Amino acid sequence: MMTSVFVGTSVDGFIARRNGTYDFLSVGENEPHGYDEFIASVDALVIGRKTFETVLAFPEWPYGERQVVVLSSQPLDFSTVRGGRIEQMSGAPSEICSRLSARAFKHIYVDGGITVQGFLRAGLIQRITITRVPVLIGDGIPLFGLLPHDVQLRHIATKTYADGMVKTEYEVISQLRADSR
Amino acid sequence: MMTSVFVGTSVDGFIARRNGTYDFLSVGENEPHGYDEFIASVDALVIGRKTFETVLAFPEWPYGERQVVVLSSQPLDFSTVRGGRIEQMSGAPSEICSRLSARAFKHIYVDGGITVQGFLRAGLIQRITITRVPVLIGDGIPLFGLLPHDVQLRHIATKTYADGMVKTEYEVISQLRADSR
Repeated sequence: MMTSVFVGTSVDGFIARRNGTYDFLSVGENEPHGYDEFIASVDALVIGRKTFETVLAFPEWPYGERQVVVLSSQPLDFSTVRGGRIEQMSGAPSEICSRLSARAFKHIYVDGGITVQGFLRAGLIQRITITRVPVLIGDGIPLFGLLPHDVQLRHIATKTYADGMVKTEYEVISQLRADSR
Repeated sequence: MMTSVFVGTSVDGFIARRNGTYDFLSVGENEPHGYDEFIASVDALVIGRKTFETVLAFPEWPYGERQVVVLSSQPLDFSTVRGGRIEQMSGAPSEICSRLSARAFKHIYVDGGITVQGFLRAGLIQRITITRVPVLIGDGIPLFGLLPHDVQLRHIATKTYADGMVKTEYEVISQLRADSR
């Protein structure tokens, strides 16, 4: 099972403003940046509560028939989700991965700031694709957070777009698993 | 007069660790990443006290005959600088730029975390070249800091290197000057 992050950030590394809005990411909405190809390779998603609430406000459920796991230790209301396959889990990233692996999922898309940071800290992300939007916003919700040690990456590919976006894909090549120490 | 930033960071945006060391930047030391071409176009540097102290510990003064301005409101000891042209200034970024412009400098290299952030906040940076080293370090001295508002960038060029570095050059295209409001 592979786990991937696929995310847009400002050049200063933010995935959203402090209030959760992400208007600054949409400069290049009219040009495809590889999301369709990426999501086509995914069979399950792991997202946090805040990402779930953001997605719930979209006009359409964006994940089709893919299994969506929302991480939360608080009760969640899925009654307004129409057409999606969704369930709630809670627990350490390693536990979530074990459960999904046991169900034969092959490629997990991990999304949302806190969720991505938790999985990275636990050594449970294999691929990171960052699309940098040509703007500095100064403050917001950062993609990355504290780590127990350096995480070495291998550069796989970088693609530039006419709208100024720069998409870089990395493989995580070395990382202690914090929860196996 | 043009002012440029040319800097290496981790993928999570740090220019140094909390203790000031930057061992993680040197993965690609054996491959040139355009620094020589960049510095050849520079006729003066503006650096902070910490960058000055770091550079002073180098085996050789790295800036040749270029004018180096160290920003500090505290007394500095230049007696051990051999071969360099160095002076101290203090004041707002706009004041520093006015003084350098009056002396007919054409291309200023602004370096050091606090110095770069101050000039960016003041709207006084025109070019930013970031070379991202394929590593996450989790914590450290960030390249970017708080801004009075979004800063729009224009992507100029991105170059990838065999050692996994990704160098991206941006032009700053819109920025209120904080000190002219």
